[in-house]
Amino acid sequence: MPTDIYSARRKKLLRKLKSEKLTGMLVTNETNVTWLTGFRGDSTWLLISAKECILISDSRYTTQIENECPGVEMHIRKNTVKMSVATAEVLKKTKIHTLAYESDSLTVNTFNELSSALKLIELVPLPGVLVDLRAVKDATEIQEIRDAVDQAQRGHGVIRASLLPEQTEMEIAHNLEHAMRSFGAVGVGFDPIIAVGLQAALPHARPGQLKISDNDLLLTDWGAESAGGYRSDLTRTYVTGKKISKKFEKIYSVVLKAQLTAIKKIRPGARCADVDEAARKVIDQAGYGKYFGHGLGHGIGLNIHENPRFSPLSDDILEPGMVVTVEPGIYLPDWGGIRIEDDILVTKDGHEVLTSVPKSLEDMLIG
Amino acid sequence: MPTDIYSARRKKLLRKLKSEKLTGMLVTNETNVTWLTGFRGDSTWLLISAKECILISDSRYTTQIENECPGVEMHIRKNTVKMSVATAEVLKKTKIHTLAYESDSLTVNTFNELSSALKLIELVPLPGVLVDLRAVKDATEIQEIRDAVDQAQRGHGVIRASLLPEQTEMEIAHNLEHAMRSFGAVGVGFDPIIAVGLQAALPHARPGQLKISDNDLLLTDWGAESAGGYRSDLTRTYVTGKKISKKFEKIYSVVLKAQLTAIKKIRPGARCADVDEAARKVIDQAGYGKYFGHGLGHGIGLNIHENPRFSPLSDDILEPGMVVTVEPGIYLPDWGGIRIEDDILVTKDGHEVLTSVPKSLEDMLIG
Repeated sequence: MPTDIYSARRKKLLRKLKSEKLTGMLVTNETNVTWLTGFRGDSTWLLISAKECILISDSRYTTQIENECPGVEMHIRKNTVKMSVATAEVLKKTKIHTLAYESDSLTVNTFNELSSALKLIELVPLPGVLVDLRAVKDATEIQEIRDAVDQAQRGHGVIRASLLPEQTEMEIAHNLEHAMRSFGAVGVGFDPIIAVGLQAALPHARPGQLKISDNDLLLTDWGAESAGGYRSDLTRTYVTGKKISKKFEKIYSVVLKAQLTAIKKIRPGARCADVDEAARKVIDQAGYGKYFGHGLGHGIGLNIHENPRFSPLSDDILEPGMVVTVEPGIYLPDWGGIRIEDDILVTKDGHEVLTSVPKSLEDMLIG
Repeated sequence: MPTDIYSARRKKLLRKLKSEKLTGMLVTNETNVTWLTGFRGDSTWLLISAKECILISDSRYTTQIENECPGVEMHIRKNTVKMSVATAEVLKKTKIHTLAYESDSLTVNTFNELSSALKLIELVPLPGVLVDLRAVKDATEIQEIRDAVDQAQRGHGVIRASLLPEQTEMEIAHNLEHAMRSFGAVGVGFDPIIAVGLQAALPHARPGQLKISDNDLLLTDWGAESAGGYRSDLTRTYVTGKKISKKFEKIYSVVLKAQLTAIKKIRPGARCADVDEAARKVIDQAGYGKYFGHGLGHGIGLNIHENPRFSPLSDDILEPGMVVTVEPGIYLPDWGGIRIEDDILVTKDGHEVLTSVPKSLEDMLIG
């Protein structure tokens, strides 16, 4: 990615700091450091102000920072010097007196270490700022997510086409990853859920030794990680038997209606709690309210779960450039579960559904 | 795994709490919750005292907790109730007045939320307790690590046997994961480093599009994740050309001598800083001190980096049941790097090297 993308992101952060009357920030969250600098390693903090942009790291990463972050300074600590002490050394050479920090990811212990190392500097908690900035994707990021969607969908096509009754959940999960990589993915966007029968009643099931032939319900929740580290996230729930049962048909229709109703609400200015409510109402009215226990969806990006969040508790408002999942589900412990999930880009005047795996009731029969 | 393993681990924690005159603890770190209960999901905390053992979770995990944690109580919060508030509800029904918490993993924000939700309860920071308990492995865990070593070594045998000049680092990384899975691994123990030529000078290189034929130096740092979630971690550095150069021979001999010298020191009671120093001295005396910038090694287990730590800063002392890596390296930015890494179990009266991939100089030539 061109380096001016990163400097544009840093400018956004500096504007935000200025509006909060803060001069500098210590970015300690690994993903936020990546987003601001392009650096893909770990154990590295970023000190940023109008004048400074310095990665505080160790000698494992000297060359990598030179390669990945042209134009960014670095301070390489010796392995006998703690991060907090190295940070104090860097700050001594600056005029920073108040320093924002990420209270939503910094641990209590590291905060205490920093406090005692930076005696004369006031630490100001500034949670959520980078998470909020990252929620709105730039053109490069949207393209990365489109790539991750394409890799996921093509990989899914391969496992769907090669499905066999004797395959286990685990085998399918592994084949899926292999297939997505053959289309350019670095790997899975998250551990895929391949769930047969009752396992589909667990919203976060782990693939095991159940076989396709053990039950005609098959839930697949999967995504890819693109070369640049962005993720996609889809779910489809199939019937691998001879025909679709009345019960499957009934529940599937409710979930699909809930999903389509919510997707329709997606546009700039919409409240995430209202989008969640739109889907939840459809499921409630069909009498399945207590079987839909999770939030309706979440942002995707460098992390698989990002802002904004669709949930009854959410204060988030949709903006152009956000990319979100919409994934209602109904889970019956004694029967199984049905979930449908797509990835949606918020556009200037509405939305674009990025994913296109067929989801009509008829498409679900692959027996 | 039998459930009495988990109750034995909880007893160890309760003994530790008692010795600190604490009655209860809130365990918020995901891996620590897994280690104490067998639960493999996320977003779930454990409240533990002599009387209570309660998982605080949400409805996505009701069934999974029933399956994975027989005998453990659960409190399922609604998705409109925050974790901190749910924790307060649970605590109201107990006689706990002082509560230990994990200040080394809890974020500042979550701590503040907890503080205001648990008004009448004193929160006491207790960092490192579970990390220290987990450093000493029980028989089940040692067997899991042996499995992960076996899966890694067999997988490595496959990619070594099928190496081709036109293969890229990325292809080899993917083939390696595929091979390890065919021997029972859930997946990689961590993102493997497959580094050709100059890339080997980066201790944490990511596999890319370089081909084996681009340079005759090939560093592989890899491991498997066993079915139970335990990890192995090995490194070998190969020459894929016609012959081993004088420079490779010289540096390799120093690294190997450093590694063997350090491994000899591994026994109960040894100071980790001394083991680190033993290897560092060999490399220093050979004149390469400034090209070995990282710690000598680390514990492995449910995480790839655990206690104890081999580094000049470490206060850790070796105990029977600890499993550690020993991985000295020399990195020359303009040439490449050589690292050798094995996994070692601390036994009652010394140590056992768990890994057995050949590492004599001659074994390194695979051209």
